Amino acid sequence: MQAQFHGIIAYPVTPFAADGSPALDQLAKLIDKLVADGVHAIAPLGSTGESAYLSDAEWDAVAATALASVAKRLPVVVSISDLTTRNAIRRAQFAERHGADAVMVLPVAYWKLSADEIFAHYAAIAQAISIPIMLYNNPGTTGIDMPPELIVRIVKEIDNVTMVKESSGDIQRMNRLMQLGRGDIAFYNGSNPLAFAALTAGATGWCTAAPNLHAALPLALYRAVQEGDLAAARACFLQQLPLLQFIVKGGLPTTVKAGLRLLDFDAGLPRLPLQALPAAAEQELRQILAALPA
Amino acid sequence: MQAQFHGIIAYPVTPFAADGSPALDQLAKLIDKLVADGVHAIAPLGSTGESAYLSDAEWDAVAATALASVAKRLPVVVSISDLTTRNAIRRAQFAERHGADAVMVLPVAYWKLSADEIFAHYAAIAQAISIPIMLYNNPGTTGIDMPPELIVRIVKEIDNVTMVKESSGDIQRMNRLMQLGRGDIAFYNGSNPLAFAALTAGATGWCTAAPNLHAALPLALYRAVQEGDLAAARACFLQQLPLLQFIVKGGLPTTVKAGLRLLDFDAGLPRLPLQALPAAAEQELRQILAALPA
Amino acid sequence: MQAQFHGIIAYPVTPFAADGSPALDQLAKLIDKLVADGVHAIAPLGSTGESAYLSDAEWDAVAATALASVAKRLPVVVSISDLTTRNAIRRAQFAERHGADAVMVLPVAYWKLSADEIFAHYAAIAQAISIPIMLYNNPGTTGIDMPPELIVRIVKEIDNVTMVKESSGDIQRMNRLMQLGRGDIAFYNGSNPLAFAALTAGATGWCTAAPNLHAALPLALYRAVQEGDLAAARACFLQQLPLLQFIVKGGLPTTVKAGLRLLDFDAGLPRLPLQALPAAAEQELRQILAALPA
Amino acid sequence: MQAQFHGIIAYPVTPFAADGSPALDQLAKLIDKLVADGVHAIAPLGSTGESAYLSDAEWDAVAATALASVAKRLPVVVSISDLTTRNAIRRAQFAERHGADAVMVLPVAYWKLSADEIFAHYAAIAQAISIPIMLYNNPGTTGIDMPPELIVRIVKEIDNVTMVKESSGDIQRMNRLMQLGRGDIAFYNGSNPLAFAALTAGATGWCTAAPNLHAALPLALYRAVQEGDLAAARACFLQQLPLLQFIVKGGLPTTVKAGLRLLDFDAGLPRLPLQALPAAAEQELRQILAALPA
Repeated sequence: MQAQFHGIIAYPVTPFAADGSPALDQLAKLIDKLVADGVHAIAPLGSTGESAYLSDAEWDAVAATALASVAKRLPVVVSISDLTTRNAIRRAQFAERHGADAVMVLPVAYWKLSADEIFAHYAAIAQAISIPIMLYNNPGTTGIDMPPELIVRIVKEIDNVTMVKESSGDIQRMNRLMQLGRGDIAFYNGSNPLAFAALTAGATGWCTAAPNLHAALPLALYRAVQEGDLAAARACFLQQLPLLQFIVKGGLPTTVKAGLRLLDFDAGLPRLPLQALPAAAEQELRQILAALPA
Repeated sequence: MQAQFHGIIAYPVTPFAADGSPALDQLAKLIDKLVADGVHAIAPLGSTGESAYLSDAEWDAVAATALASVAKRLPVVVSISDLTTRNAIRRAQFAERHGADAVMVLPVAYWKLSADEIFAHYAAIAQAISIPIMLYNNPGTTGIDMPPELIVRIVKEIDNVTMVKESSGDIQRMNRLMQLGRGDIAFYNGSNPLAFAALTAGATGWCTAAPNLHAALPLALYRAVQEGDLAAARACFLQQLPLLQFIVKGGLPTTVKAGLRLLDFDAGLPRLPLQALPAAAEQELRQILAALPA
Repeated sequence: MQAQFHGIIAYPVTPFAADGSPALDQLAKLIDKLVADGVHAIAPLGSTGESAYLSDAEWDAVAATALASVAKRLPVVVSISDLTTRNAIRRAQFAERHGADAVMVLPVAYWKLSADEIFAHYAAIAQAISIPIMLYNNPGTTGIDMPPELIVRIVKEIDNVTMVKESSGDIQRMNRLMQLGRGDIAFYNGSNPLAFAALTAGATGWCTAAPNLHAALPLALYRAVQEGDLAAARACFLQQLPLLQFIVKGGLPTTVKAGLRLLDFDAGLPRLPLQALPAAAEQELRQILAALPA
Repeated sequence: MQAQFHGIIAYPVTPFAADGSPALDQLAKLIDKLVADGVHAIAPLGSTGESAYLSDAEWDAVAATALASVAKRLPVVVSISDLTTRNAIRRAQFAERHGADAVMVLPVAYWKLSADEIFAHYAAIAQAISIPIMLYNNPGTTGIDMPPELIVRIVKEIDNVTMVKESSGDIQRMNRLMQLGRGDIAFYNGSNPLAFAALTAGATGWCTAAPNLHAALPLALYRAVQEGDLAAARACFLQQLPLLQFIVKGGLPTTVKAGLRLLDFDAGLPRLPLQALPAAAEQELRQILAALPA
């Protein structure tokens, strides 16, 4: 049986209007485009969605708009991470109430969290909702690294934590999840340049912002690995690798919004202190996009 | 001429009531205690003050209370860091309006910031206020490391950035600030276990949460270095080093609030996901405190 | 056309007699066993072969014995790394004279080497011999990390550097070699737990000490990837992963010699300061070996 | 009572003749110069002395020459580090036989050593000689980091390990040695840019190659700290800091030999793969040297 979430899980950016407020109409259009392009799921308000930079009111509006826009055409996982457990719970309940199929939880923190504090954070959120949780490990962003042993403990002991998104960038973490979970833990790749290795290692899906700019190639990679066509998968991966490397290196909201502008889709700028992509980098991105198949 | 900020700059925790809201009366009492103990300046809403975990309304209440409590008895530097430039400016203006002598700015971020983005962030805040800014470098917490060259550029090119708090934990950074600034840049130590080395290296002051639990020893260390009594300074530093190591290792809000409880001062618990200090660590802290001079 | 070196390139340990001297007869027996087991090439005097711990006279004896034992049944790549360029050249010429098909060169160093110093080191060795060189990057061991750009420069500008062994443990390095070399640079995996990802990424071979203890599984993994049977490859990889993780974690000479002892092959102990595998770890290894298919 | 080794412990380079062999006459001259300049001890064959790049015969010749040249005018500590315990013992005994006052032991390794292996290595060398051992921690070079707890265990349990040279570059390590050793462990600074902080922290001496190029400033720093003149110490340290930073950044043998050439002392070049200092860096060094007091 196929997992509810599998394949290409697309992360829309949060478009901003000229006055800096979320452009909800553009968000709806972007989601329509992703659905039309054939991605397998939608993940609003992730790192790509500048969730961390939104006020609570803005966050709520974006979440509600995204869920209403998808309108059950695809499964939706909403990132509800917040520095306090209290607000993370509030967001998770909001997402559930508005129809989210799952929530994604990254243990963001100012002060480092102990394993017990991380566990309790997940447990508290899990208890407050009845939809599944995708645990998200991203030490590069949060400074908190959940080793596979802790992740597996959380998945086994907290009922509705059922999926794991790994963004540590180390393929051995995924092998370790396969080992410790005896193949029963659904894990997802969150490190774009690791996509090929992760899918061959057994990842159920790939969480990525790349489809904002080009959905066909990530979808083709997923299909080639599913079909066991290693040569096609490798060629397809190498074809999209410059784009993946570029958007990761320059920061996802910054580069994806610049790319959308080049593709004539107005998603505005990232929010300050994040700035528009510098001109030289934009020129490089233009060339990368031009080299991709239409 | 002595800098407005010098010596022991004390970071009060933000006490919480049983219902989790800021206990403003206890904050006022804690500040009174710090002033009575003879510290040289007060720094509310820093890392220690759990600033990152407060809502905007809570933040405003704590800032206003702290400034009203100090009531010009000592200089006050308010930490106004926020993920967005817009809200950082709002907080800085709020602090200025309520009588802050300076604001402290840490470039917190979810996405890494480029040197230009950091510079623009400082410039925008500086332009919006007329009080001095203490730049704060803390790569361990923010994931953003401002090298001495960038720090010196910011201090030289933005008029009211006049002080630097260094918490990278590397004494060579301070030597480098001395070199690049030719001794003209006032820098402050923000890494507790580095206090002795930093003061001998020429730090103008030491930003520390230790005075919440024991103000006399940090003050004695500062005085001994000022007076050039190296042997006394070394002995005094070694005496307080176990406390400094403990509060850094266990996280400042968590350990300082536990210590205040042991000293019969009710500052409540840190905010979830941060939890109370585990019992075994509390026992260790009890012994450390008992070994300090009364 | 198939590269001269491909597939499973086996690294024999250097057996030591009870008096601590190299046991050349046991080395010959071990090589016979590896050849009989069907590995594709032999690589004496690598990290696994404790090359760094041998005197020059011992090194020469081991090299000559290994080459004579293989006796052209398989291609042989001899690791000739040394701290000085002069002795590296001496060893490379010795290996060539005794029939080596290629030499492997790791830029070992006490003092960090600049890119120019690394380049000149390779160029000097290359000029002194007429057989191919396999460049070896292993920052974990040497403290020197050759980025893909430098590696590609060396391969392109120095004629007989024709192969690259990557042991940085980062699959993205291999993707980068594919990109920069446009698929024309033969690269080999040197990080055991990365074997599956590396072979799918396009590695021509896998340099490994695992065949000392079990040759069938690495060979099966290589074959499965060659045949594009992803499911079989993944299963086969997960089956051998505990062994790979164990030998890497405990150090190759230490763990492989312990394993050989458990398999009733006397390869002696590693040379001091390296010690025999502690008893508890040996017990763990016994269980890992017992779980492998006969 | 003053330790036998204290103050400025100078590391002479090993001069090479035009043919690449050790220039023993120049070594003797260099040592005479260091003695005349007033350093407190001599440490031949350290990292600076390119010990790792010498054959055993060369090593013996350099050790014998250095000891004969000092001729008991000053205490001498000979670095006897080697990859094998056997050869480290041979060198230690050679040094003792030729009159060394102590030996320095760095646990160099190709394969990482466990704490037990490190302990046994020190114990074996200690048992083979009757002069004191200076334990040397330098994780940047060896990849092996001995935490303060292990160091203190070795010093307490192995009788003739009586001194500790710390080159991890972290001043907190020295504070920790003070704490764990209750002030009874003589420790020495091995990280040049940390010299001022280390001496104020209580280091008994400073192991440095700087006196090859300028002995007066390190001596003045040591004296100022001894006399508790913090302002003089700070000024003196800042004066020599550019030199210290430069020689550390560019590698000690490379930069010190370049500097000696600029000072008209012929110490030859470092041994390949190490190359002469590039011209641009040499020009920078010329300016640094010119700015120092004559």
